[in-house]
Formats: sequence, C-alpha cells, structure tokens
Amino acid sequence: MSTPLLGRYVAVVGPADTARPSDLTHATEAGRLLAGTGAVVLTGGHHGVMRAAAAGVESAGGVSIGLLPGLDRDEGAPEHTYLLPTGLGELRNGLLVRAADAVLAVGCSWGTLSEIALARRTGVPLVLIDPWDLPDDVGVVVASAEAAVEALAGLLG
Amino acid sequence: MSTPLLGRYVAVVGPADTARPSDLTHATEAGRLLAGTGAVVLTGGHHGVMRAAAAGVESAGGVSIGLLPGLDRDEGAPEHTYLLPTGLGELRNGLLVRAADAVLAVGCSWGTLSEIALARRTGVPLVLIDPWDLPDDVGVVVASAEAAVEALAGLLG
Amino acid sequence: MSTPLLGRYVAVVGPADTARPSDLTHATEAGRLLAGTGAVVLTGGHHGVMRAAAAGVESAGGVSIGLLPGLDRDEGAPEHTYLLPTGLGELRNGLLVRAADAVLAVGCSWGTLSEIALARRTGVPLVLIDPWDLPDDVGVVVASAEAAVEALAGLLG
Amino acid sequence: MSTPLLGRYVAVVGPADTARPSDLTHATEAGRLLAGTGAVVLTGGHHGVMRAAAAGVESAGGVSIGLLPGLDRDEGAPEHTYLLPTGLGELRNGLLVRAADAVLAVGCSWGTLSEIALARRTGVPLVLIDPWDLPDDVGVVVASAEAAVEALAGLLG
Repeated sequence: MSTPLLGRYVAVVGPADTARPSDLTHATEAGRLLAGTGAVVLTGGHHGVMRAAAAGVESAGGVSIGLLPGLDRDEGAPEHTYLLPTGLGELRNGLLVRAADAVLAVGCSWGTLSEIALARRTGVPLVLIDPWDLPDDVGVVVASAEAAVEALAGLLG
Repeated sequence: MSTPLLGRYVAVVGPADTARPSDLTHATEAGRLLAGTGAVVLTGGHHGVMRAAAAGVESAGGVSIGLLPGLDRDEGAPEHTYLLPTGLGELRNGLLVRAADAVLAVGCSWGTLSEIALARRTGVPLVLIDPWDLPDDVGVVVASAEAAVEALAGLLG
Repeated sequence: MSTPLLGRYVAVVGPADTARPSDLTHATEAGRLLAGTGAVVLTGGHHGVMRAAAAGVESAGGVSIGLLPGLDRDEGAPEHTYLLPTGLGELRNGLLVRAADAVLAVGCSWGTLSEIALARRTGVPLVLIDPWDLPDDVGVVVASAEAAVEALAGLLG
Repeated sequence: MSTPLLGRYVAVVGPADTARPSDLTHATEAGRLLAGTGAVVLTGGHHGVMRAAAAGVESAGGVSIGLLPGLDRDEGAPEHTYLLPTGLGELRNGLLVRAADAVLAVGCSWGTLSEIALARRTGVPLVLIDPWDLPDDVGVVVASAEAAVEALAGLLG
C-alpha cells in the first residue's frame, strides 16, 4: 500500500454552519483518502466540514486531531480521534494553520477565509475546492477530493 | 471640539511590504483624522500602512499602540506612541482584531485579508478602503480616509 | 483489562535540561502506566521529562501528543506519537494545561512551575512528584509514578 | 527631573481577589514612582494589585496599559489609561511578561506565580515584594516600593 503522506499533517478547513452538501461530500471523501495516504488530519474540531472530514478519516481507520476554539472537549464532533480544547477562540484558526504541513480548504466562510489567508501569509502549501473568488495566486484550486489529495501529495511528497 | 470616538479603539490594518503609495496616503490621513476624533489607534506595529497610520496619529498629537508579532520592541515603527511585542507571530493579527472596537482596512494583502476575515467572523465593525474583490457583505467600502472615519463614527457612535 | 482513564487527557510536565535521573525514571514509568489506563498523554514535546514520558507511553503502545513551543515539528522528541508545532513560545505551557483534564508534574523548573501555577489558577487537577517547596494546597504530592497514576485515576475517575 | 525608565515598560503583577492591604499599598506606591521615572506600566487590567498600580500611575499623570484576559473592555479597572481585551484567558499572563522589559511582582497568588515563573523562564528581569517562599535565585526581593523601583532602574538603566 502506498502511503505518500505518512507522517505528514494536513489541516482540512471549511465552513461549519454554512457548509453546503457538496462541501460535506468533498470533506468526507478527502478525509477518507487522506487517511489512506497515511496523513494525520487536523481540523477545527467542530461540525460541518470539520466533522465531515473527521468522519471520512474515521471510516478509513485513520487519525484526526481537532483543535477546538473553546475550553470544553465536549463541544467537539465525536468523529475525531482526538480533541484538544485551546481556549483561543478564533485565534485557534492560526494555530491550526501553524500545526499543519499543508491546508486543504473545502468551501468557504469568513472563518475559512482567515485560514486561507494565514496559510498564504505564512507560506503553508494550500489546496482549495470551491473557494470564493480570490486572487489567482491563492493556491492550487481543484474540483474533487481525489484531485485535492493528489495535489497535496505532489506539494508535500 | 467634537470627539465622537473618544475612548474607542480602532485598528488600522493594511499591507507592509506591498503597500501602494495611495494606501500610505490614505493610512496617514486616516490616522490623523482618527486622532482628531479621540480614538486610540491600534496597528500591527510594523512599516507600510501600519507606520503610515501611526505617523498620521503622531502628527495630530494622538495615541497609537502597535502590537508586534515578534519579541523585540525595536522591530516596531518608531512613529507609534507605544509598542508591545507579543511573540505570537501572525496570531497577533487576531489579537489586534480582538482588542479593537472597529477595524479600518486600507488596501489588502494576505495578512490584511486574515484580519478582514477575522473581523467579519467575530462581528467587529469593519470599514475598508481599496480592498480586494470580496463578497458584498464584507463591510462598508469607502473611497477616502474622510469617508472611512465618518463611517467608523457612525458604526461606533 | 481495566482502563480507568480511557479517553482522558493527562499532561505530563517537567524539566527539560535540568531533569534529574530520578525525574526521567518517574516520567517514563508514569507514561507507561498512563498508557495502560487508556489515557492520552500530552507533553511539551521536548526532551527531558517530556521525552521520557513519551518513551514510556510508546513502550506500552499508547498515544502521546507533544505541543511544541516553536514552529518546527523536527524540534520534537521522536518518541511522541504526534507532534504539533504551536509557535507560541512559552505560552504553549498554558495551552498544554488547557488541553488536559489533569496535570502530572515530575520534578520542577521555572517552566514547570508556570504550568503548575496555571493548573492551580484554572482549577485543573494536579498531581506532583518531587516538586519544589510550594504551598500545601498545591495539589496531591506523591512519591512514585504508581501512586501518581492512582491519584490521577481517583481525581478523574 | 530624572526619568531613568523613560520609554521602558514595567509589568506590575499581583493578586486580584486575594491581595492584602499591604500589597495594595505597595502597588499604588510603585505605580506612582514608576510613572515618575517615565516608565509605561503594564498590568493584567483587573482589580486588586493591578488596579492599585494603575491608580498610582494615574495619580502621577503617567500611562498604564491593561491587558485583559477576556473579550470585554468593560471588565477592566477604569484607573488604567488604556485597556486591551485579549480573549486569551490566563494565557494573557504570558503575553504580559513578554510585552514587558521587566516585571515587578507585589504579593503572590497562583496566577502571579505563573507570571513570576514565566519571567524567570524567559529571562525577563524580575523584582519582588513579599513573594511566597521560592528558590533564592528567583530575582531581587525587596521590602518597599521605593526599593523596587530603584532595583528596576538598576536592572534596566
């Protein structure tokens, strides 16, 4: 079995409340495929895209770590393998980008945009599915979870 | 003298290295006008738009506080009245948004975009001059420093 | 097999450079025993007590997560199962205390004392082996790793 | 007039709820004297020693900046010249130590001890009035506000 991202950490970020059905589908599929590559998946620990990604990871027997904004582990989506409360509020978005070797953004929201912008600002490789209109140099924009994971493997391999 | 923003804190954010001449002009003028309203101006403490805003504040005898990403006060632009090293790196962008009652973004960059996105995410009132193309609900987009300060006074007054 | 701390997170904190041989022995044994209870062990990711605890966890097939102060995953001790760079410098001490359900301090140093003090300040249950002289209400002081894990199970069970 | 600490930042830290009358007296006197030296005084923004220090600064026409743990500026003691919400909870203790050129601890509590320990850990010069029993190398222990400010001037001058 090929595990090109073994030991690498990929943050999957995206909307919570405003995630569209297609975002959730992409996130679950990306989580499943990332787990298959050996990557550790990081998320913001909440619902929407975060929960969907964790569910995908779980279905493939992989590992996800959710970095929660609040102080209570119970606020996290239970599909995560591990959940860490940070108490940093929205500053945990920056922590998530820092802790990752690459970021995959699925869909967009203002919180997601802050993560995209911080990834670009700090030079963390970035792949995006269905982002908002952003400058052309935002990163690698792809149309499917499969293409996203392939792009991530290329960037980190 | 009218000081509609007396005791209010306004963060002026914008590019450092990639600030255009017009961004610097807007920032200096906004700093000058904000000082006249009695506002305390917060910035990220560095050069470009941050320094220009602090220079405007200084020219009007106002107060600016720069929240630096690093650990060394000497990295800050000396036009600031006070400079506080945070050692948080780019997480200080989020701290800046939190400490402010409103945010004025002048121009844009990936770092600035992270501040715009966090302001929107956390509900901090936002006024923008010359932003990138962003969703229509991003905030109040104006064309001059004078219009920006008027808008801020309206939002916070 | 009894796993009284299954799903609970215990931070093992202690000196890096100034760890004594007995601190390392206690930390490794505590890591081994905590893994046996089902607990996830958190550390600051570095050497000394942190590395020794991670090594104990590893020997028992458990899971440890190291929260590093810097930006580089490679600065972490490789005995950890997972390593997350935070870039927070010594503020990651506070993050470690927050993310944990209980703290076990093995030995002492100024950095360790900051973690002990933050645990007390924020009400996180605290067990200590060989601490400095501190007020009597500092927490449960014990003499062995076995007694420490028993005390932690009592506090969290 | 001699202002040996002009442009230097001194954090005055100490208990909130558990401050003794003598702590408050020392803090107010230290704030008054520090303002006279030209120093900017930083505090945690709350009541007790923090508020007493700010009141002393105010009585001498100096400047204090309070870094609040929460998100609400109104939680701060109004004697401060400026108040900045950080939303970091007790992690703001570390921010306070970082932003300061030196720390003066008046009295002690678990929160104060975390600041003392972080100052020692990160090499920030430290002067203490009435601390708990701590290792001899904790810093310069003095008996009065006057001696504290003299010691600070010696350390930073």
